[in-house]
Amino acid sequence: MTGGRSLEARLIARIRRKADHPAARGLRDDVARLGDLVMTHDTIAQSVHYRADDPPESVGWKLVAVNLSDLAAKGADPQAALLSLAIGDPTKDLAAGEWEERFLTGVEAACESYGLPLVGGDTIALPKGAPRVLGLTAIGRAETAPSRSGAQAGDTIWLVGTLGDAMAGLALLEEDEDAAGTLVEAYRRPVPQLAAGRALAPYAHAMMDVSDGLLLDAQRMAEASGVAMVIDLGALPLSDAFTATRGDDQLFAATGGDDYALLLTASPFDARNVTTCLPSGTIMTAIGRVEEGAGLRLHDSNGPVELPERLGHEHRSP
Amino acid sequence: MTGGRSLEARLIARIRRKADHPAARGLRDDVARLGDLVMTHDTIAQSVHYRADDPPESVGWKLVAVNLSDLAAKGADPQAALLSLAIGDPTKDLAAGEWEERFLTGVEAACESYGLPLVGGDTIALPKGAPRVLGLTAIGRAETAPSRSGAQAGDTIWLVGTLGDAMAGLALLEEDEDAAGTLVEAYRRPVPQLAAGRALAPYAHAMMDVSDGLLLDAQRMAEASGVAMVIDLGALPLSDAFTATRGDDQLFAATGGDDYALLLTASPFDARNVTTCLPSGTIMTAIGRVEEGAGLRLHDSNGPVELPERLGHEHRSP
Repeated sequence: MTGGRSLEARLIARIRRKADHPAARGLRDDVARLGDLVMTHDTIAQSVHYRADDPPESVGWKLVAVNLSDLAAKGADPQAALLSLAIGDPTKDLAAGEWEERFLTGVEAACESYGLPLVGGDTIALPKGAPRVLGLTAIGRAETAPSRSGAQAGDTIWLVGTLGDAMAGLALLEEDEDAAGTLVEAYRRPVPQLAAGRALAPYAHAMMDVSDGLLLDAQRMAEASGVAMVIDLGALPLSDAFTATRGDDQLFAATGGDDYALLLTASPFDARNVTTCLPSGTIMTAIGRVEEGAGLRLHDSNGPVELPERLGHEHRSP
Repeated sequence: MTGGRSLEARLIARIRRKADHPAARGLRDDVARLGDLVMTHDTIAQSVHYRADDPPESVGWKLVAVNLSDLAAKGADPQAALLSLAIGDPTKDLAAGEWEERFLTGVEAACESYGLPLVGGDTIALPKGAPRVLGLTAIGRAETAPSRSGAQAGDTIWLVGTLGDAMAGLALLEEDEDAAGTLVEAYRRPVPQLAAGRALAPYAHAMMDVSDGLLLDAQRMAEASGVAMVIDLGALPLSDAFTATRGDDQLFAATGGDDYALLLTASPFDARNVTTCLPSGTIMTAIGRVEEGAGLRLHDSNGPVELPERLGHEHRSP
């Protein structure tokens, strides 16, 4: 994967260099803009972004949810989606087309749950033996769409959601493909924080979703904003299911990815104010502060903590 | 491919049944709508929609051009594009990433030629051995966006562009992979009829692009509009390059596909009127008339001509 990784990075850098249009925030940020519309596209491939034996319904759900998470991070209302469905070989004991039918069931369930109309797209057949490749373009409408580059020294860093559940769930699946429960569900059926994103967008100086690991995404926000992000590992929100399995392994939680939590910075006053508007049950936690300077720094109650070598996983392009 | 074909059709039918949102014109028409925006997505796969030995620049050009052709058929101005790039194995004698770099050169050339800003997307790596899958979402703005369902009895049927060149070019390539010339260029670098589409949209009762073969696409327009389309094979516009290679094989030209011509119906008066606004060099030809009834009928100067068994090629979903 390392060779593929750097090739991806090289090609993304090339696309960015050419894309100098003001709408091309999508190449540095999570979304592109066109007037008050925000647009995002995610593509996933079998055996790269999902396990071949994941239930097809959950693959469909997740494809929609990860795109909606990008919209959530811009405070956007979902408007429309276009689906790219590349049909693969029949899977194991499924009839031809059954995988795709069940995948569509998951796509439709997520679209209905979050009010995202599926309005178009393309359906193609792949050559025999080719892994499925599935894509979704999601379009939303946002009055204010905070970028990842607006964090200001003095801001509080907030996180909406919990960390590490999905990666703990994936680890369980890798030990036992029949594993089930809260953590496995977090991996298979992430919940985009749309309502929280809408409520927080007017107050957020910078906001993005945590898809590749908190530390990697926070480092990206620090770099884009030209500030230092200082994170208190002891403050990271861990679910009961996570701690029951992993204890308080904060570094695992902070580098795993696939969380689809929201990372934002805001003035302490504004963000505390808005917590009253959040949907009930929303977990919103202050996890650090923004300072003058550059880069990412960690500490816990005992003092500074060295950055781990791997801050997150990069198979999903920024 | 037949099994794949019917599976595609079944899955498309299922997506259509669920997509009852008014914006979902894209599932019956060429594009979806959101306010004055029109949106389209095309996905292409190696060895299905392009030849593995096609120059990568031309694959990139064509991916952009086929999406722009859908916008042209709605009279839309290009606004933004999102690219899905799935990186494949190094091709033959190319270095890793060289195919993709050259593909991007073609994407960028087409985007620059037609004023389509590339504003976002996703870049992923595929598992070893997987064929490349490439997708583009194109978004345009259109004041009036004629559908394929508005053809009226009494209308003249018009075609903008010529027919058969691309398929004649593909046939040459299948005999000799080093073939070159006008017909090969028509296959590799189709020209979206954007300016003509914008000029004609206010007058067109129905308009669509001819991607799968004139006869198949005209039959789809007849069905969507609830009318009969009567086409004069003798009137079909064939290029000099085509007739030099294929003579006047009108049925080959009318069923080949990959033409990216515009098919429209309009009152005879309106369309003759607008030809003065077309870009110089535009070939616009009256090829038949719309009548009460249903289905597709052909004739030439000798009288009725039976429909061929195959009206076009369906690997590109409608």
